[in-house]
Amino acid sequence: MISKKIKDIMQSGSAIRAMFEEGKRLAEVYGKENVYDFSLGNPSVPAPKAVNEAIVKIAQNTDTLALHGYMLNSGFESVRKTIADSLNSKYGTRFAFKNIVMTVGAAGGLNVVLKSIINEGDEVIVFAPYFGEYNNYVANVGGKVVVVPPNPPTFQPDLKAMKSLVSGRTKAVIINSPNNPTGVIYGEDTLKELGKILKEQSEKKGEAIYLISDEPYRELVYGDYQVPFLTKYYDNTIVGYSYSKSLSLPGERIGYLAIPDEAEDCDNLLAACGVATRILGFVNAPSLQQLVIEQCIDEKTDVSAYDKNRKLLYNALTQYGFECIEPQGAFYLFVKCPIEESKFVAKAKEYNILIVGGKSFACEGYVRIAYCVSYDMIERSLPYFKKLAEDTVK
Amino acid sequence: MISKKIKDIMQSGSAIRAMFEEGKRLAEVYGKENVYDFSLGNPSVPAPKAVNEAIVKIAQNTDTLALHGYMLNSGFESVRKTIADSLNSKYGTRFAFKNIVMTVGAAGGLNVVLKSIINEGDEVIVFAPYFGEYNNYVANVGGKVVVVPPNPPTFQPDLKAMKSLVSGRTKAVIINSPNNPTGVIYGEDTLKELGKILKEQSEKKGEAIYLISDEPYRELVYGDYQVPFLTKYYDNTIVGYSYSKSLSLPGERIGYLAIPDEAEDCDNLLAACGVATRILGFVNAPSLQQLVIEQCIDEKTDVSAYDKNRKLLYNALTQYGFECIEPQGAFYLFVKCPIEESKFVAKAKEYNILIVGGKSFACEGYVRIAYCVSYDMIERSLPYFKKLAEDTVK
Repeated sequence: MISKKIKDIMQSGSAIRAMFEEGKRLAEVYGKENVYDFSLGNPSVPAPKAVNEAIVKIAQNTDTLALHGYMLNSGFESVRKTIADSLNSKYGTRFAFKNIVMTVGAAGGLNVVLKSIINEGDEVIVFAPYFGEYNNYVANVGGKVVVVPPNPPTFQPDLKAMKSLVSGRTKAVIINSPNNPTGVIYGEDTLKELGKILKEQSEKKGEAIYLISDEPYRELVYGDYQVPFLTKYYDNTIVGYSYSKSLSLPGERIGYLAIPDEAEDCDNLLAACGVATRILGFVNAPSLQQLVIEQCIDEKTDVSAYDKNRKLLYNALTQYGFECIEPQGAFYLFVKCPIEESKFVAKAKEYNILIVGGKSFACEGYVRIAYCVSYDMIERSLPYFKKLAEDTVK
Repeated sequence: MISKKIKDIMQSGSAIRAMFEEGKRLAEVYGKENVYDFSLGNPSVPAPKAVNEAIVKIAQNTDTLALHGYMLNSGFESVRKTIADSLNSKYGTRFAFKNIVMTVGAAGGLNVVLKSIINEGDEVIVFAPYFGEYNNYVANVGGKVVVVPPNPPTFQPDLKAMKSLVSGRTKAVIINSPNNPTGVIYGEDTLKELGKILKEQSEKKGEAIYLISDEPYRELVYGDYQVPFLTKYYDNTIVGYSYSKSLSLPGERIGYLAIPDEAEDCDNLLAACGVATRILGFVNAPSLQQLVIEQCIDEKTDVSAYDKNRKLLYNALTQYGFECIEPQGAFYLFVKCPIEESKFVAKAKEYNILIVGGKSFACEGYVRIAYCVSYDMIERSLPYFKKLAEDTVK
């Protein structure tokens, strides 16, 4: 009785969500402390204290009708202005409130922008490995994903391959840096070149190819790495942001889209995003959380905790003989499978280690290990990773 | 550069949202106290005090990772159980937590359930007048709306006409009682008959035709009227609920779907709704608000305030000579236009009275007046409604 499309998606499943649910099951059988669940990007660092303080203050001091009522579909103007000002001071951009559309997380934002630009059959280029949900988001609006093959071992985007995949139906390119699942940050030179190619190709096509930058991990960066701000390198850039990771609020569903004046048809596109927010059933981003963001705009998550995890796990796994690029941002390790992927995932599960196969990211032969977990759990898992290496690494 | 579909929707526009935005503009020109904005269903009764108290308590006492983190896409089990228990005690149903899927308001819930059941070209029957967004929700998933003509002056659903519109592609029927825009409650006999017809037609078709009951106004009922609970009258019923009106939380985007075990393919359908919640980009209903609902399950809005508004406006308008069915629930009057609809709406606007034409609800020749506003504003507006009557009623 359920629709064909959803049935197909259920059968192929979200391996990530399936692992997450399997983890809950195993925890019941073996005890939570004996299951090493690295499946989900669910932050392990608590939200900054200021978040809950802001919630209390807002609930106690804001007029209830204003706090919980409808606002414009694109969100409270004051919140959007605060975000615009913050971006401008950080990145030297020139956003006004009208350039910001509040969204139900980055997932909501991506659906909104795709609904706003994609006609049936339009193509959206993505770089493997990529977050598998993009396939669903693009399909929701009748678009078609075109995949640029992975480019190991650096996992920088293969721009030559991308250029060859641009067609008359190409409407957008999605990038995600710091990247889920590799942790790689796309370098400035790469982005300049990407902008140059897209500019040429847009001119050739006679209309803009939008660059959609999915940036939930923008603030999760280690050491001296920098995440270049995309609108500087290409005018037709749409930034999709989420506070899920940067403020550890994934369950609250709060983020935004930023579209600069330089983008083709900018005002129309912003209006379309407001309308798409409405008709897709989001209506608006949750009102209380919008006001929380306004109060907490300068708050940051504790990246050092993820960095500690990263070092512990990366050093141990490479010492055991696994091959892996050192992540520069986000909170994932993307490890090469020493044996066939599904066998490796199954073998790991024998040790109660839950990880997600690269197939879910269009990059077979790898696994993603989400290290946004407790340091303690990583420590406890290491003997089992060692055994896994002994079983599988030649 | 924007997609054709969204362009069409932007051109036809949401008359409701356009009026809401026009109201903001007029308020700047004439002063807020001189604009009588009856355009939007934005509750004027504040949320019960317990809501903000619950927010404070939860923010102060809940583990931050659990509070703001991801949960299952269908929502926290404890919240779903609380809702199931509450429904069971009120309506004698037998819901368990698994029968409840938390959603981003009723708008989110409707999109989720339509995504779960509609194949390209499937038909969804609605009864005019109806909330115009249904057109977009059904179109989002490639379905087709089939409209049963309005049935004035009672505005009870015309079941004979509905039966004649059932086809081999009919997948669902949406009803909304208490109704937006008429305020009418569909009677028990009508619902029994509706259930009987749908059962016969499902058997004839060889698969279930789902009845989707959109119930944001279920608790907003005046006098002794009762809103029958739909799952009693037809097994294949899916209830979509929202706390937007019943707890005055429209900006927070919190509601649920309830699907009884009796519904065909129930478990599969519930799983599909969880998946649809994920892939449409909602991911989950906002986590804090889910917990608020758990705390405030027995809270009620102050219906008497809306009732006072209803009586004041209904009595005055009918006294001035307007024709209108007395609303039994929700917070709308659906008034017959004494002159051509668009002229009447324009004439009202000359007096700074903002109301929405019936065309937006597939029922031309009427206007919807949302009386979820301050009593004071209604009082101030009456002299202008009187003038409007003098200008237009013959």
